[in-house]
Amino acid sequence: MNYKMIGCLLGQIIRVLGLLMFLPVIVSLVYHEPESLKAFLITAAGLILAGTLMTVKKPEKKDIYTRDGMATVAATWILVSILGAIPFTLAGAIPNFADAVFETASGFTTTGATILNDIESVSNACLFWRSFSHFLGGMGVLILILAILPQSDTRTMHLVRAESPGPTAGKLTAKMSSSVRTLYGIYIGLTVLEMLLLLLSNFDPVPEHRMSFFEALNTALSTAGTGGFALKNASIAAYDSAYIDIIITIFMLLFSVNFTLYYLLFTKKFSQVFKNEELRFFLSIVLISGIVIAADITKIYGSFFRAMRYSFFQVLTMISTAGFATADFTDWSSLSQMILILLMFVGGCAGSTGGGLKVMRILLLCKTAFREIKCVLNPRAVVSVKCDGKAVDKEIVRSVSFYFVLFMLLAAVSMLLLSLDGHDVGTTATAVITCLNNVGPGLNEISPSGNFAGFSSWAKILLSMDMLLGRLEIYPLLVLFTIRKK
Amino acid sequence: MNYKMIGCLLGQIIRVLGLLMFLPVIVSLVYHEPESLKAFLITAAGLILAGTLMTVKKPEKKDIYTRDGMATVAATWILVSILGAIPFTLAGAIPNFADAVFETASGFTTTGATILNDIESVSNACLFWRSFSHFLGGMGVLILILAILPQSDTRTMHLVRAESPGPTAGKLTAKMSSSVRTLYGIYIGLTVLEMLLLLLSNFDPVPEHRMSFFEALNTALSTAGTGGFALKNASIAAYDSAYIDIIITIFMLLFSVNFTLYYLLFTKKFSQVFKNEELRFFLSIVLISGIVIAADITKIYGSFFRAMRYSFFQVLTMISTAGFATADFTDWSSLSQMILILLMFVGGCAGSTGGGLKVMRILLLCKTAFREIKCVLNPRAVVSVKCDGKAVDKEIVRSVSFYFVLFMLLAAVSMLLLSLDGHDVGTTATAVITCLNNVGPGLNEISPSGNFAGFSSWAKILLSMDMLLGRLEIYPLLVLFTIRKK
Repeated sequence: MNYKMIGCLLGQIIRVLGLLMFLPVIVSLVYHEPESLKAFLITAAGLILAGTLMTVKKPEKKDIYTRDGMATVAATWILVSILGAIPFTLAGAIPNFADAVFETASGFTTTGATILNDIESVSNACLFWRSFSHFLGGMGVLILILAILPQSDTRTMHLVRAESPGPTAGKLTAKMSSSVRTLYGIYIGLTVLEMLLLLLSNFDPVPEHRMSFFEALNTALSTAGTGGFALKNASIAAYDSAYIDIIITIFMLLFSVNFTLYYLLFTKKFSQVFKNEELRFFLSIVLISGIVIAADITKIYGSFFRAMRYSFFQVLTMISTAGFATADFTDWSSLSQMILILLMFVGGCAGSTGGGLKVMRILLLCKTAFREIKCVLNPRAVVSVKCDGKAVDKEIVRSVSFYFVLFMLLAAVSMLLLSLDGHDVGTTATAVITCLNNVGPGLNEISPSGNFAGFSSWAKILLSMDMLLGRLEIYPLLVLFTIRKK
Repeated sequence: MNYKMIGCLLGQIIRVLGLLMFLPVIVSLVYHEPESLKAFLITAAGLILAGTLMTVKKPEKKDIYTRDGMATVAATWILVSILGAIPFTLAGAIPNFADAVFETASGFTTTGATILNDIESVSNACLFWRSFSHFLGGMGVLILILAILPQSDTRTMHLVRAESPGPTAGKLTAKMSSSVRTLYGIYIGLTVLEMLLLLLSNFDPVPEHRMSFFEALNTALSTAGTGGFALKNASIAAYDSAYIDIIITIFMLLFSVNFTLYYLLFTKKFSQVFKNEELRFFLSIVLISGIVIAADITKIYGSFFRAMRYSFFQVLTMISTAGFATADFTDWSSLSQMILILLMFVGGCAGSTGGGLKVMRILLLCKTAFREIKCVLNPRAVVSVKCDGKAVDKEIVRSVSFYFVLFMLLAAVSMLLLSLDGHDVGTTATAVITCLNNVGPGLNEISPSGNFAGFSSWAKILLSMDMLLGRLEIYPLLVLFTIRKK
């Protein structure tokens, strides 16, 4: 392991994190929030100083390999979850530091689970920092650094691979760093577009249905990362606006799609986009789930159209793992609840900001299951798993199944540990599921109208670890915890 | 497919099923139950007649292969679940036939889930038939036929493979049919021993703590198949006897162990038994779970010793998938509940009468997960999964992971379908889990103090299918449902 180079990379990240805190500093100046201003300024100064000190001595050997890449990514995410939590506690918004770490980890991993009982009493600077952490975490913290700072291409590849969700990391162009910049461009473009569309809500005659500039900005940042932090205690339900619901629903869909597809769209390779099996599988799941739930809840909302608004919002908030709320689905029938719980495991497409197991993995798991059945029925037949018309590498099929096994074992162990905190079985099980899949809400105590405040500090740290394990897809953290001195 | 031979085998099974019904006929004569006598006599006569007609014409080609073996096993189990249910309805014990099929499927698959609200009002003949179906199903319905009737060895092998639980079917001796008879000998021996030990409860000074001959017989049959049907509404809790609890606990353990180990014990190959990794893994899980739960529930039961009695009983009733009850674990802490729910998935050892995924599969899944982690951490290392000191065939490792994927997909689909019946999410989810794993009780409505009476008829048929899929480990039923005409 190249510890010096990893240290240098972490130094750069800490410095960039410090610099990024000047954004909430600006917010606190605009809204005259002296406590938050002080908290973010002190933290920013500290981080920039520490980061600069760590990068003063440039390492001679700059090469890093898979293991180094994974360890760097894991260390980065743990660091930003801890360091990013400091201003929350300094500003007094979240006095307990374990709570603040949970909230920050929930932010960066784009989970959106909160321990705040009264979100509306928190300063705007802190609220912005929460939403902004979703935006940063959605695409990847390290990828941001890679987009800004010049790096060697092989180094970039190892870091991107370790941080990108999904079974494989795509390359758009021959040069990795230019791919990263293109993806960030698409990401920012979509976020700005969503914000502008949300601002159009100000033409609504009913004042409650309108979003201020600050609210639109934060909601867009939160949607972009498929995070789920909102500025209101009632989440998006507070606006009670069909227009806002529909815009957010559409953008949750857009941010759950593999970003390389947008690149293909821009380069006019339309047929490749429409033939993409993962996309078609994803859209089919969304469509079928949305219609079934809408039919199921029509009796609650009066008309099928109104039911569609709530059902598709909820389906996309679950499958994209954003976790916004416009309705408390725990009041819906158990069919709808069961669909929503299963959608949590599906998650977004590979290469999107969505969490979960990823649509691609579920698609491959289903195909593998059918292949396996075929093999048992016709032992002499040679059947390979195909995707997008090509046979999928056996190694990928194998690793996807094993990842699923590992994921379920991890869920089982987490549930056992969390059950020591004494919450009911439904809360315990869904807390682990929602955190591992980076969704946000669950059942019972942590339903859309509840929150995670009831867990004890150690349980919050455990759930924070689950969020990180889910976001980084397990392996990088394992590398970090198994570092041996040579 | 050799349909004629399959038909002939099914005829033999139907006839044997008819002959076996003379046992409840005897019970109804002893206890003077005219209605049950009539019901069992009529059914027996009908089955013997039908079975004989089906076997009159012997097929010329008697060879069967893997697919035929699987189809025969699946058809057998569906048939016995339906035909075995007839006397329950004829005798008036269970008027609704869907209910009777559920109860019979639950019996043969050794699930032990019941729809009876008042077990004690049912005739002894019917109660005996319930318990006896556990005994028959535990070892395998077809294996019984194979033990009785002379069969060719290759044919036996295909049938045993399709009916035996676990990733591989063991052979004790060179001749399969003599292996089957040895296993049945061990099975009957242990059952009789348990019955005798249960009868010793009659030396207890308190009358409530005693078991009658009939109760001891039924309880022993039920334990042998790790089924879980009891003769009292309160299950084993009705006797409130530490002695009875301990005897049943010990025998649930004994019946969850791979039966080939007993054969090794008899042939004095002790070292092979003690080195057996599956056994050691199984005993470790039982010991750790039992002690943790005992510590957890000591505050409820006053002393640690008393808590141990309830905890080990419950741990074994779950892991063996018997599903007896001495206490309602839904009143225990969520730690204990979570452990018990996870134990349902573990199940008994391969080659035992226990259900679940089987200890061997869980062991291989854990080892595979660790192997996978090692591979990711050291991409160049070649690590193979070892068990009992030998490298496990890659094909088995692969198929175990895929079986797990298939099992979880099946669970997800079943939960979705069952949620249409409108029970709460906890009931729906645990009903599927408990039926697929052949356990019996679940949470909420189907807790140890509840039952499955609340489900509608179609839901009971769905759950019966889940029980059969779990008992036969999915594939045989798939073969049956995908038979194509050539």
